Parts: sequence; C-alpha cells; structure tokens
Amino acid sequence: MDGSAPDILDVPIGIDATGTRRETDAMGAVEVPADRYWGAQTQRSLEHFSIGDDHMPPGIHHAYGYVKMAAALVNGAAGRLPQWMADLIARVAAEVISGDLDEHFPLYVWQTGSGTQTNMNVNEVISNRAIQLAGGTLGSKSPVHPNDHVNLGQSSNDSFPTATHVAAVLALHDHVLPELRSLHAVLEQNARKWAGIPKTGRTHLQDAVPLTVGQEWSGYAAQIAAATGRLEAALPGLYELAAGGTAVGTGLNAPPGFAERFAAELAELTGHPFVTAPNKFAALAGADAMVAASAGLRGVAVALYKVANDVRWLGSGPRTGLGELRLPENEPGSSIMPGKVNPTQCEATMMVCTRVMADDGALAAAAAGGSFELNTMRPLIASSFLHSARILTDAARNFRVFCLEGVELNRERIDHDLGRSLMLVTALTPEIGYDKAAQIAHAADSTGSTLREAAIGSGHLSGEEFDRIVDPRAMTEPPGAE
Amino acid sequence: MDGSAPDILDVPIGIDATGTRRETDAMGAVEVPADRYWGAQTQRSLEHFSIGDDHMPPGIHHAYGYVKMAAALVNGAAGRLPQWMADLIARVAAEVISGDLDEHFPLYVWQTGSGTQTNMNVNEVISNRAIQLAGGTLGSKSPVHPNDHVNLGQSSNDSFPTATHVAAVLALHDHVLPELRSLHAVLEQNARKWAGIPKTGRTHLQDAVPLTVGQEWSGYAAQIAAATGRLEAALPGLYELAAGGTAVGTGLNAPPGFAERFAAELAELTGHPFVTAPNKFAALAGADAMVAASAGLRGVAVALYKVANDVRWLGSGPRTGLGELRLPENEPGSSIMPGKVNPTQCEATMMVCTRVMADDGALAAAAAGGSFELNTMRPLIASSFLHSARILTDAARNFRVFCLEGVELNRERIDHDLGRSLMLVTALTPEIGYDKAAQIAHAADSTGSTLREAAIGSGHLSGEEFDRIVDPRAMTEPPGAE
Amino acid sequence: MDGSAPDILDVPIGIDATGTRRETDAMGAVEVPADRYWGAQTQRSLEHFSIGDDHMPPGIHHAYGYVKMAAALVNGAAGRLPQWMADLIARVAAEVISGDLDEHFPLYVWQTGSGTQTNMNVNEVISNRAIQLAGGTLGSKSPVHPNDHVNLGQSSNDSFPTATHVAAVLALHDHVLPELRSLHAVLEQNARKWAGIPKTGRTHLQDAVPLTVGQEWSGYAAQIAAATGRLEAALPGLYELAAGGTAVGTGLNAPPGFAERFAAELAELTGHPFVTAPNKFAALAGADAMVAASAGLRGVAVALYKVANDVRWLGSGPRTGLGELRLPENEPGSSIMPGKVNPTQCEATMMVCTRVMADDGALAAAAAGGSFELNTMRPLIASSFLHSARILTDAARNFRVFCLEGVELNRERIDHDLGRSLMLVTALTPEIGYDKAAQIAHAADSTGSTLREAAIGSGHLSGEEFDRIVDPRAMTEPPGAE
Amino acid sequence: MDGSAPDILDVPIGIDATGTRRETDAMGAVEVPADRYWGAQTQRSLEHFSIGDDHMPPGIHHAYGYVKMAAALVNGAAGRLPQWMADLIARVAAEVISGDLDEHFPLYVWQTGSGTQTNMNVNEVISNRAIQLAGGTLGSKSPVHPNDHVNLGQSSNDSFPTATHVAAVLALHDHVLPELRSLHAVLEQNARKWAGIPKTGRTHLQDAVPLTVGQEWSGYAAQIAAATGRLEAALPGLYELAAGGTAVGTGLNAPPGFAERFAAELAELTGHPFVTAPNKFAALAGADAMVAASAGLRGVAVALYKVANDVRWLGSGPRTGLGELRLPENEPGSSIMPGKVNPTQCEATMMVCTRVMADDGALAAAAAGGSFELNTMRPLIASSFLHSARILTDAARNFRVFCLEGVELNRERIDHDLGRSLMLVTALTPEIGYDKAAQIAHAADSTGSTLREAAIGSGHLSGEEFDRIVDPRAMTEPPGAE
Repeated sequence: MDGSAPDILDVPIGIDATGTRRETDAMGAVEVPADRYWGAQTQRSLEHFSIGDDHMPPGIHHAYGYVKMAAALVNGAAGRLPQWMADLIARVAAEVISGDLDEHFPLYVWQTGSGTQTNMNVNEVISNRAIQLAGGTLGSKSPVHPNDHVNLGQSSNDSFPTATHVAAVLALHDHVLPELRSLHAVLEQNARKWAGIPKTGRTHLQDAVPLTVGQEWSGYAAQIAAATGRLEAALPGLYELAAGGTAVGTGLNAPPGFAERFAAELAELTGHPFVTAPNKFAALAGADAMVAASAGLRGVAVALYKVANDVRWLGSGPRTGLGELRLPENEPGSSIMPGKVNPTQCEATMMVCTRVMADDGALAAAAAGGSFELNTMRPLIASSFLHSARILTDAARNFRVFCLEGVELNRERIDHDLGRSLMLVTALTPEIGYDKAAQIAHAADSTGSTLREAAIGSGHLSGEEFDRIVDPRAMTEPPGAE
Repeated sequence: MDGSAPDILDVPIGIDATGTRRETDAMGAVEVPADRYWGAQTQRSLEHFSIGDDHMPPGIHHAYGYVKMAAALVNGAAGRLPQWMADLIARVAAEVISGDLDEHFPLYVWQTGSGTQTNMNVNEVISNRAIQLAGGTLGSKSPVHPNDHVNLGQSSNDSFPTATHVAAVLALHDHVLPELRSLHAVLEQNARKWAGIPKTGRTHLQDAVPLTVGQEWSGYAAQIAAATGRLEAALPGLYELAAGGTAVGTGLNAPPGFAERFAAELAELTGHPFVTAPNKFAALAGADAMVAASAGLRGVAVALYKVANDVRWLGSGPRTGLGELRLPENEPGSSIMPGKVNPTQCEATMMVCTRVMADDGALAAAAAGGSFELNTMRPLIASSFLHSARILTDAARNFRVFCLEGVELNRERIDHDLGRSLMLVTALTPEIGYDKAAQIAHAADSTGSTLREAAIGSGHLSGEEFDRIVDPRAMTEPPGAE
Repeated sequence: MDGSAPDILDVPIGIDATGTRRETDAMGAVEVPADRYWGAQTQRSLEHFSIGDDHMPPGIHHAYGYVKMAAALVNGAAGRLPQWMADLIARVAAEVISGDLDEHFPLYVWQTGSGTQTNMNVNEVISNRAIQLAGGTLGSKSPVHPNDHVNLGQSSNDSFPTATHVAAVLALHDHVLPELRSLHAVLEQNARKWAGIPKTGRTHLQDAVPLTVGQEWSGYAAQIAAATGRLEAALPGLYELAAGGTAVGTGLNAPPGFAERFAAELAELTGHPFVTAPNKFAALAGADAMVAASAGLRGVAVALYKVANDVRWLGSGPRTGLGELRLPENEPGSSIMPGKVNPTQCEATMMVCTRVMADDGALAAAAAGGSFELNTMRPLIASSFLHSARILTDAARNFRVFCLEGVELNRERIDHDLGRSLMLVTALTPEIGYDKAAQIAHAADSTGSTLREAAIGSGHLSGEEFDRIVDPRAMTEPPGAE
Repeated sequence: MDGSAPDILDVPIGIDATGTRRETDAMGAVEVPADRYWGAQTQRSLEHFSIGDDHMPPGIHHAYGYVKMAAALVNGAAGRLPQWMADLIARVAAEVISGDLDEHFPLYVWQTGSGTQTNMNVNEVISNRAIQLAGGTLGSKSPVHPNDHVNLGQSSNDSFPTATHVAAVLALHDHVLPELRSLHAVLEQNARKWAGIPKTGRTHLQDAVPLTVGQEWSGYAAQIAAATGRLEAALPGLYELAAGGTAVGTGLNAPPGFAERFAAELAELTGHPFVTAPNKFAALAGADAMVAASAGLRGVAVALYKVANDVRWLGSGPRTGLGELRLPENEPGSSIMPGKVNPTQCEATMMVCTRVMADDGALAAAAAGGSFELNTMRPLIASSFLHSARILTDAARNFRVFCLEGVELNRERIDHDLGRSLMLVTALTPEIGYDKAAQIAHAADSTGSTLREAAIGSGHLSGEEFDRIVDPRAMTEPPGAE
C-alpha cells in the first residue's frame, strides 16, 4: 500500500466540508471541525488547554515544516519511506512553511510541557493534507500516517526543541538582526550628521563638560552594535539540533546516522549551518542555547531602553524640559499647544524593552525547571523567545522610522544651553589659574549670567580672549582622544 | 444643534460600506476602513504602533464602556450634555460593554504610555456609532463629538487608569475569584475525602513521619484560600478611581463634584463600591493599587505552582516514581505502555504560574517608571494584569476540571510505601527505648526489610505488639494537634 | 540530674579559653573554637557551607531567642522542663535577643533549605551558655541539652518559619514602618510648605497645565502612605506561626496545646498579637505570608523609586536641567563649578529600590519551590526579606535626612518656567476663544516669547487683562477639585 | 616639591595613632579615625550612606589597585608624574591589590551611582599611605595628592567602570572558571564511571525508555561545559576598558594616548588582554559587557540548578523516593533513621542559583537605567556581579566536594526499577508485534508483575527469549546513536 505510489492530485488548500469529521487516536474517536486538517490529538488539546488567548507562535509551525521536510527527505533517501511519500510530505511541509496552513494550527501555548501536542498538530495536518493530495480519506491515516510516516525517526522530545531552535534562528536571521542593523545605521548616520555640534554633557543629570551631539549618538550606535554582535554570537548554540535524540536522548528508534543527516538536510534547506547537538541528553533536558539567545535579546533591550529614554528626555519641553531634540509628531499632541510632542515612540519602545527583560527571566526560570531527561516548560521557552524577538523587532523598526529618522536638533536651544554651561570654566584654568576661574564661575552662578559675561566682568580677560580660550568644540576633541 | 434631540434610529451594529472613509483629527485627514467605527487617531496609532500581535485586552474596552457611560450620565444630570445625548452615549457605551463592538478596537498594547490612543479609540467609536444611530454622517463628529461630548470632563491621563481599575475589578470579581473559590472547593473536598488515609510524609524529599493524604491536601486548600484572601484584599485599592483628576491631577476642566459623582455613578452601574481616589496626583503618577493587585495574582501563582508541582510528582511513575496519585488521562500518553499518564495539566499550570510571576515583575518596574505627573507605562500595566488574570483563571479551571477532580489515590502504593517507611520507628522509642528502636531501623535498612519484619526479627517485640504500637494513623493525629 | 536545680552562676558572656574544644553530635566529634559557644552541628555547617560572605541576618537569631524563650516557658509551665531549667533557658534566650551573643552565630545563608543548621546553632549556643551558667562542662550537653531541652517540642521545620515570621514582624514594627512614617511626614510637610506655589506640570515629560509644588509632593506623600498601609496589611499573615507543627505539620511530638500556648507566650513576650497558624501543613510547605510581606516591601520600593527619580530630575541642572529643586550638598561635587550637586541620595535610593524589587522576585520563586511537607528554600526567603527591610529602611532614612529635609525650591526657576509655559494658553480660551488662543500660542512658540508677550502682541488683550485671566495658581485649584 | 624625590621609608602598613585626624576636601574639614588611611570624602560617604551592611566587594578595591598602578606607571613614563612618585604610587597600589589594606575601604555599595566615593576612597588611602612612606604628614596631601597625582588622567566616571571590568575579569579567571572546570571534570568522571549502567529514563517524571547513568551525567557535564564556554565568551567584552574617557567620554584632561597606553599597561600587569574600549561614550553610559557577563553567570546558574535538582530527586528516599543515588552524609539527618540524608548541598546550590538569576535581572535593569553620558547605577552592577560570581563559585565547589565527589549509586534500586519498567516492552515489538507486546504490558500493569513475568505468563515467549530480546543496555545504545 505504501509501496505503490498514488496519483498526487492538484487540490488547493482547503476542505470543502461543514460540520464535523471523526478522527481517532489511541484513546478513541473525537469530532473535529470538518474544514480543518487537524486530527484527534489536536482536538483533545484544544479542549483541555483552552488557557487565555496565547497561541503557539506561527514561527514554530513554520520551523516544524522544515523539520518534517528534512526528516521526510532523509527517510526517503534511506529507503525508510517510499520516495513518493517523502516527496509528498516534503511538498505539504513546504505549504506549512509558507504559512498557507496557519489556520490549521490552533493550539495554545499553555499545553503539555514537551510541546507534544503541537508536534502532533503538525503531524496530523501534514498527514491529512497529504491524504487529500493522494486522493485518500481524511482521518484514515492512509496512505500517510501522522506517526508512522510524518513523525518517523522523531519524538516530540527531540523535535520540539529542534523546531524551537530553527524558529529562533529564522526569527533572528530574517527579522531581528536585519532590523537591528537598520537601527544601527540610522543611529550612526545621526552620529555622523551631528558630529560637529557641541552640546552640554550631562552626568548624574547635572551639567558636565561638553561633547558633540554626534559623539552622544555614536555611543547609542556603539551600544546597539555591541548588543547586536552579542546576539549574533548566540547563533552557533542555536544551530545545534536535538533531532536524533528521540525520547530520552539515546536515539532509540532513530535510524543510524539520522541525527547527522537530518541536520545536514536542514542546513541545506534553510541555508543556515545547522549541526547535530554534541550531547543529546543536554539538548533534551536543558534549554541552554535558548537561555543564551534570550540573554542576547535582553541585551538589546537594555541598550535600546537607554537610547529611547535619552531621546524622550532630550526631546522634553518644549519650554521647561531639556528641549535639545525635536521629535516627529505622529499623532495629535495638544490641539492648542504647539510643540507639545509626546515621545510616544520612546514610550512604546521602553515598554517593549521592559517586557523583553521580564520575559527573559521567565525563560531562564523555565529552562532551569527541567527534570531528568526532559525539560517540560518548552512551550513557554519557545513562545517567550519568539514573542520577544517579534516585539523587539517591530519596536526597533517603528522607533527608527517614526522617531529616529525624523528627529531634528533644536540648535538654538543646544547652543544657548552650551553658552550658559558653567562647566566651560574648566577651559580657563590653564590660562588664568584655578582660583580666578572658580571666582568667575561663582559670579556667573550668583548673578545668573553667562560665563562669558562673568569673565569679562571679572576683569581677568576680555571677550575676545574668552572666545579664543573657551572653545566648547575643542573641548570635545581633546588631544588625548583617539 | 446639540440642543435639539435627533430621532434615534434602531440600526444594528455594523457599517454597510466598503473601501475607506475619510476621518479627521487635529493633524488632518486620514482614510480608515469604511466598515469600522474608529476615526483618525485610532488609524494613526494602528500605523505607528504595529508592534507584535499584542492587542489591548477587550476587558479594557469594556471597562471604558462603563467609564464613558458614567461620565455621560453625570454630565447629562448636570446639564452639561443634553439628556438625549447623555442617553445616546450611554446606550452605545452599553454596546461597548457587551462586547458587540469588540472588532472596532484594534489597537496594540505597545502604544503611547498614557493609553491616550485607546481612549481616543473608544471616543471615536462611540461618537461614530452614536452618529449612526442619530442618523448623522460618520466622521462628521456631529451631533456627538468624540472629544467634546464622549470625553467630556475627562483626560486620557485620568480615564485610562480609571478604566484599568474597573477592568481589574471586573476581572477579579467575575473571573479570577470565582474560579479560585472553585479550585479551593475541590482541594478541600479531596482533603475531606482522604482525611483518614495515612501516608509517608516527605521533607527535603526524604521519607518523614506520616500524615494523612487529607492533611496534605488541606495544606493545598489552605494555601489557595489564603492567597485568594490576599487577592481580595487588593480590591479596595482598585476601587479608588483617578477620574476627575484630568490632565495632571488638579481636575482642571472637570466640573465641580465630577470626581465624586462619577465614582458614585460607576458604583451604581457596576455594583462595586468604587470611590474617588483620595489623591489624584498619586493616582495619575503611580500605579500602586495595580502593583498590589498584581502581587495578589502573583501570590496565587506561587501557591498554585507548589500544588501543581506536588501533584505531578505524586503522580510520577507508574513504576519508578512516587506513584501515590493516578492522574486522569486526557490525551494519549504512550500507546503501548499502560499507566504512563503525563502530568500535562500540571505542566501547563506551572508554565502559567511562571509567566504570571515574571509579568508581575514587569508590572512593578513599569509602575516605578513614571515621571512627575504621569506614569507612561500604563498599557503594559493594564495588559499584564489582565493577561495574568486571564491565564491564571483558565489554568486554575482546567487544572481543576481535567486533573484535580479526577485524581485518584493509588491506595496500594501509598499503603505499601507507608509500611516500608523507616520513620515509623519513632513510634517504638517510648516503648522499647531509643537504642533498640534504632537497631531495628538499621536492621531493616541493611536487609531491605520492613520495620515490622525487622522488629519481629529483633526479638524485642512480636508482630501483634508492633501492630499495636506502630499505628501510622495515630501518628498523624498526635494528642497535641488541634 | 535535670530534676535537681544547679546553682546558677553570674558568669559574664565569654569563654576564657583558646584552641579548640571537642563537641559531639550523632555523627561523632568535631573540634570547635574553644572561645565559642557553638557545638558540632554548627561547626560542620561552617565547613560544608562556606559560600560567599552572606551570613544569616542577626534578626533571625534574635527572633529565635524569642522562640526558644517562649518554648522554654511553655514547657516549664507544663512541667515538661524543670522550672529552673526553663528559667535558665529563658535567661540565655534573653541574652540571644539582646544581641550580646551575636558573634556565636556564624552560619551562612546558603545552608540546608530548612534552616536546620541555624536552629541547631541556636540550640547549641543556648545549651552551652546555660551549661556555663550552671557550672557544667561545655559540650557535655548537661544539664541543658540542645535537642532534648532547648529544642523541646520543636522541629527545625516549624521553628525556622516561626523565627522568620517573628523576625519579619520585629523588623517591620521596629524599623521599617517607623521610618516610612517619618519619610511620609517629611513629604507631607513639604507638600504643606509649598502648597501655594504654582509650577508647570509635566506629562510625558512635556509641559502641561500647572499644579502647585505642594500638590506634586502631596502625590509623593500619598504614594508612600498607601504603600505603607499595604505593608502593614501584611502583618496579620506574619502573626500566624508554624510552631507546633513540628516535622511535617501534624504536630507529632509536640505536647497537647503547645501550638496555642506557644503563640500566646510569644505574643506576651513581644507585645505583638501572634497566633498559631490555622493550617500547619500550609505553614511548613508554603511561605505565603512572607511572599505577601515581601510584596509589601516591593510596593514601597516602587513608590520610593518614583519619588527619588522625580527629585533627582527636578534637581537637575544647575543650568541645563529642570532646576526646580536645590538638593543639599553632602559631598563635594565639582570643585570648580558651583551648583553642581549630584543627586547621590536619589541614586543610592534608586539602586536600593531596584535591588528590593529583584529580591522580591527571588523570594517568590523560592516560596513556590517547596515540595510536599516542606519548603526547602527558607534561608533565602528569610534573608532576602530581612535584607530588603534593612536597606529600604536605611535608604528611606538617609534619603529623608540628607536630601528631602534639606531640599529647597529654586523659586526663580519655577516662576520663570511657569511664565514661559505655553500650556497656560488654555486659560485664555473661555475669554477669547480657541482660535485666537491658539494663534497666540503659535506666535509665542515661533518667536520664543512668553505667552504674555505674544498675547499683548496679538492685540487681542492687554497685559492687565492677561494677568487677570491667566492665573496659574487658580488653574491649580479648579472649581471642580475637592 | 614633586620634583625632588623624598626618601621612601620602610614603614609597615598601619597607623599608630588613636582618636581622630583632621582631613579636608573641597567642602572643608572632617574628623576621620586616626588609625585609618582614608580621607574626608570617604568619611563623608560613610556618614551619608550608611545603608544596610552591604559593603563594596574587596574585588573592586583590588582591581582599583591595578587601575591606579597602571595610571601611575603610564603617567610616570610620560613624565607627567616624577618617576619616584609613580613608583611610590605603584608600590602602594600593590599593597592595595594584595588585600593588606582591605580594612581601609569601608564604604557601602549604596552610594553615589558613579562609584565616585569608592574611587576617592582609593585615592585617599593611596595618597596617605604614600605620604606615610614618604615621611610626610597624613592628610596633608603632600607630596602625593589624591586627586592631582593618584587620580591623574582619570575620572570616577571612567575609572569605576574600568575597575569593575578588571574585577570581573579577575573573578572569572581566578575563581569562577577554574571552579566550573573542576565541577565539569567531576561530572564527566561520574559520566565515564557509570557509562555502562542502564537505568530507567524519565520524561514528564514518568517512566521512559532506558539510558545509562553515565549518559544522564554526560548531559549534566555537557550543560555545564556549554554554560562555561558561554561565560568565557563574555570575557572579550570585559577586556574593553573605559579608562581614558574621563568625565563624559571625550577624554578631556586625559593626556594624548592615555587610553591605549593605560590598557596596554593593565594588560601587562594582569596578564589579561585588556584593550581600550572602541567607544568611550557607550563605555560610560552603558554597562553592556557587564550585562552579557552577568547573563553568562546566569546561564551557569540555570544549568547548575537543573543538575542539583536532579541529584536531590535521584537521591530521594531512602524508601519512598527515587533512591537511585546515595548522597554523602555531611551532617546528622535523622538520628534514629538510617539512610535519611537530606540533600543539603543541593538545596544550598539551588538557593544560590535562584539568587544569581534574580540578581542578574537587577543588574540588567540597572544597566538600562543610565541617562545621557553616565550610568549611575554602577555600584549595584559591580557588586551584584561580584556577589553572584562569588556565591556561584563557592556553591559549585561545595556541591562538588561535599556531594558530587561522594555520590554513590544504589545499584540494587536502579536495577530493580529498570527490571520493573514497562517501557522495556518496546523492545519486544519487533519480535512479537505490537499487539502481543501491549498485551504483556497491560498484564504486567494489572498484576503488578514485572514484564518478564508477564511475558512468560503470556506464553508468547520464554524467559530465555525475553532475556535475549529485552536488553536494556542495548536500548541505550541504539544503532543510530553516535
């Protein structure tokens, strides 16, 4: 039966049926919606784990598509599946990857701790869709069986962590890292654009010696670049796949060489250098690579929070704040008051970062919570990571597009504040000595005048001399600087 | 215009239009989907804050329905709105509360930190739906204006925290607390049912002196009861409403007595004893009552985690675990191996509790993050709380229904283990002295026999004497116990 | 031997010996420092748990002093201890409470999860000190035995949580709450002192309608008052004591009525209304009252963080910050620049609050981590709570004494900023209409002038009219405000 | 004055004086203890920041010793300090590094957010000790001035993060990493030792197919190895030093080339490849390398928690737990009951890991909390990291020495449980088919017999056949395994 290849039909995705269909598993029969591909185990999970509104992220199903495709191709090549069936499973897996079957993966995050139910959801959907294409009867498990064929050589215990790693790698490569590079590019661009504009530095929120606006932004760019680099450094851990470990890590029931060939196939299919995990027991019982990758996202959140917080403060005002930056106005602020632009992109970004930091803690706790041969908090780990990756990416993009790219300097305010800064007095000390310099600063402080006014008033030096000596721009590029 | 009451039509919810409609705000015009009630500010937010897939929880909009209804009624009674308009707004607000307008609230959690955009979403939807009922033109803001009428006497800065408190109170009263009481009832029922069955106690995971199964479950029940009580104790803080504080807490532009009358009206409408917050500056700038309520949820999660963890361990086996409990089998475990029932409900519950604990930390950080007259992490606060409330409720329900109500004792195993426990030797000491008792225990340990066998073998006492003296049931009710 | 009362000597605390002394326990003999009262089990713990530099907080030992005193008195009254021995143990326990024996409690936090080793440390020290007073031989366990007498009726499993609750109650009553009340008093005093001084409000860090300085501080006071109240509400849970539950909660080996009499005695000794916990199984296996009390401390930290953050920002400058507050200068800022006062007290306070929030999370995780009849993360729970209580108290005190009590207003800056705020334009709308008001604001914005200047320049109203209409003070007390 | 080299005396550390000494700073004079080297600023900090009992970790002062030594040598070589003074400062700095001056660094963690007070503490102590060696007058600041000489070319803002990185690198290299390698070695040794012993696997805490004890331990070893590797990967970030950035990152007042030469000197002195940070603005305003390093410690804690948790469970019993491991008995368990060995090392380790995970969150929050040119939560960052490093190291050592090295297998129990496991039935399916195998398993389950007994009873195969086919050892090394 499996041996004789059926004709494969060209049926589009979709089941033209209403009501329910009977599907079976080891516990017996259940009714499932007739227009859905899933089977009995998915349906049972839907009923027993209807918790909140948190669904397994689509990224997991798409990654599972790659897992099932790679397994089928390896099994086909080794003769453990007839080639037509391997090809058929791979074809349906491609549909899974494309997202076209997304509505057939309805399960919740909060389910069995091994992710078994999501694995079965994928097995059942691929089985039934393959049966449809082969002209068979949905629910018959023939000619393509969810367990015997789609899941061949796998266990939920190794395939769910495998799919999690694949999904994490794809999220990082396709979304997070490109967006962080775009963010970095804009920060760097602003740093270059404003490289020559001196401003008052601030330490402890207090006036300090000057730096240029560009230097300040170069710090932002450097922080994001470093955090991005650290996130990339988490990739090699994610490339290591649990597949081949099967139920407890020994690889029982996986064919010889399966782990290596599977990883090679997945690398081929995705273009990412996946390899088999060096120790399958650790791969099933721990989630250390995910902890490290999550720490990478957290590191980005820490840096991004600081940048967003600075930007909102530098844009505070318009009159009684710091007022150095003019933020783009994306939505009505005060209808009557010009210049009141709420730093909404900053606020959204900071909330996202706060959430990412907290979720990282939950993920680590979950990773520590395994016992013996299995971690049973995997759905939390997978969904937390993918959620953080998603909101961090989107927040970075919106913050860039709707804020950073449109930020403008309030040169007038920057110059005015710089002129008023008493810290410039430090430039006078080499010329007139510490005591006279301090006198001038105190005079400026008590009268509220500028340093320049106080310097002239002191009789110690002329306006021209002051202008020559007190050159804030020069103070930002001391001879010792690189 | 506002003065003359229009005829109110009986149009069902829904806009029979396709394409887009032009809506305006202070920044100009934007196109919105023609079949949606929202206006320009909602549309702008949708475009600027498309972050992830986290939408403002419906509970917030429903609560906002109460807020808008109460404000309209107070404004109507005071003559600040014509009565027909107050009634019309109240009518639409009731539709909002019912959930029938849910699809018209599309905004994301990660938006402006004050929740302004969600407030405007509500104002715009109520305005347009009221306009529709009044036979007006959608987007015309006439006769019911989103700001001038629906938002009258309010600011986002006071209405969003108000709606958050209302949503939190409703979630607790309508969902969380009833479910926790049901959970407690089952725990207590099991405690009573198994009150007379002695088992080996375990401390440090090591065999300890006996207690009854019912006593163990009475501890679970007591923990949940105490945590539930602490959560209820957070309600009075949530009853205090920021409404009336308007933009910065002074109540500028709110009419005299608005704060008090609003709270009274809301109490009337909801049946919960809402009052006006004693200090509006604290109510706008802090989120302390939410922090306390979140701590209440967290306290439940801590207790529930312990219960779920115990249950999964007590159900471990079937052969090489503790095996005291038989958990209901809700989905296929091993198809070939009888008795392998994975503790999936426990696992889901523990993941939920882990997430609730982490979210509580994020909420507290957000509450600490306000500046001056406003906390600008309110959407995170509101959505975290409601999310935790929801998943905790659902997890508690499923854990109860699909696990706790069906748990059965493995009496054979419990009795067998109790008989083997060496800790029963403590009962012998008053009779035969410490030294002989210890000898017997050591003999049992080295031979692997039961205490009874070792006792008889020692020659110090007969089997009948042993059975009389070593009465595990009696050890669970020492004379000193209450 | 126990029956005949020895003469009790009047030996001061201290052992006049050098080298080591042989002490024994069930595992045999060990050498302990001859000038220390502790015995074998303490010494073993010292050797096996030398982790870091975190020692069990003295508050735990002092609380244990009360526990041992109460147990001795109850046991003495019931005739289970000869009266002279009960009195002797109570006498030594008083020395423990006083702190005079502190150096004899050397153990680390990171020890056995039940706190057994600290309980034994207390038992051993009291035993040896009592032996010394009775003229006996140190280490002989006669006439006062650490287990048979000092620990009579107790188990570590119930006494450690009991001591933890007592220590927490004493820390709250004696330190935390009084200090929070002092903090609140200063905040309130500043609120009253500055009740009549209008300033620019800020929302989203942007200029907003005015409020008074006093109103802003009333918000701080209200937040601290509410948080303090919530912390007090955690006390009743802490009053419930595990004592009497002994090893697993059944009370095995505790005499009849011990739990109730012990709690009553402890209430008598401390003046706090301790009662016996209603369910001992929950009291041993959970730590829910500690979780709630820790949430109370966390709530204070959240509010205090916000206040300290506001104060440092309001004190930022002197020139290019907000500059509304002048913070006391406690240490040299810049030696050359006047007015640069770093907000060091705010920074220390914010770090402390950050730490308290994180420790609260660790405590909750620890409380969730018990199994069956015992929580085995108790030392972490106890020490985290007492640590948080201590640093929060000290930070609140220093922040108050060295910052809040000395904070002064920079009236010139406040008035100047208020005069420049464009948000005052809202006061003009009722008089000259929205459009003209907006025109004036836009004119002021584009020219950088004050609203008053722009108003006069507009020709719509005179300076006198402006001054009459635009009364920031009046805007802070709208007719609708309470 | 600076030019003429004084005779350097050979005075041992210590000041032979009582009472107080007058020390001065920019704010005037204060009295300091006469037998301490510290000066006015240290004394002021002691008075203003007496918060709790958390002192700056000695590692910071020792690292600061290197910082001051390197700066002096660079300044001396460049002629900015007379060589004798550079040498003198270096000599005293060596005393600081050695720990011999530890008692002269009394400051608290909770101080100014830049760590300025600790920097000044170091400057003051080195100044006075150098003065003592030069025969000068303590407090005179001559011939070696704390600011002008010891702090030359530095600011607290760059030196504190520099010292933090140095301290972190030393802690990792000298303590954490070696200890983790020792831990790994023991885990690997146990894995090898027990490589041939099959046992029941457990997934979801339920009996699963077998693996060897060695395989299980190989997973522990692999987890620790991977986590150690990730921690090492954090070192390069820590090698980057902020020194040379001075107050705001521009390097104002640092001499040309100072940053590079300083880093080179520090590399020379310590033997670690320190380099100057590529962007000083990021180095001062962020703490990203510390966040990553802390994530590295956290990663170790996550893995170690899992190992310790497994070990305590595998050691549970002796009768009614899993009982596979016999843990070393380090302290008395139950005096009467043999075999009751509480897993105290596991418990301590798990508490330490819980604390490390929480502290990591606090550190990240602190790192996100900087503003503009400076992070002002540095003392929390530094002390949290060093604290975590310390307790993790000590816990890993004690867990290894007092638990892992002495753990023994309970072969009898392991074999017995393996023989009883129904999961072995999977080995029969290829031989007798699924249906008969399932029948046998069900028979064993219902009668409580072993599979072997049930198999023989079924008549499907003989005992010899069973023993030949059901070979648990073979199941642990399936042909597909590497």
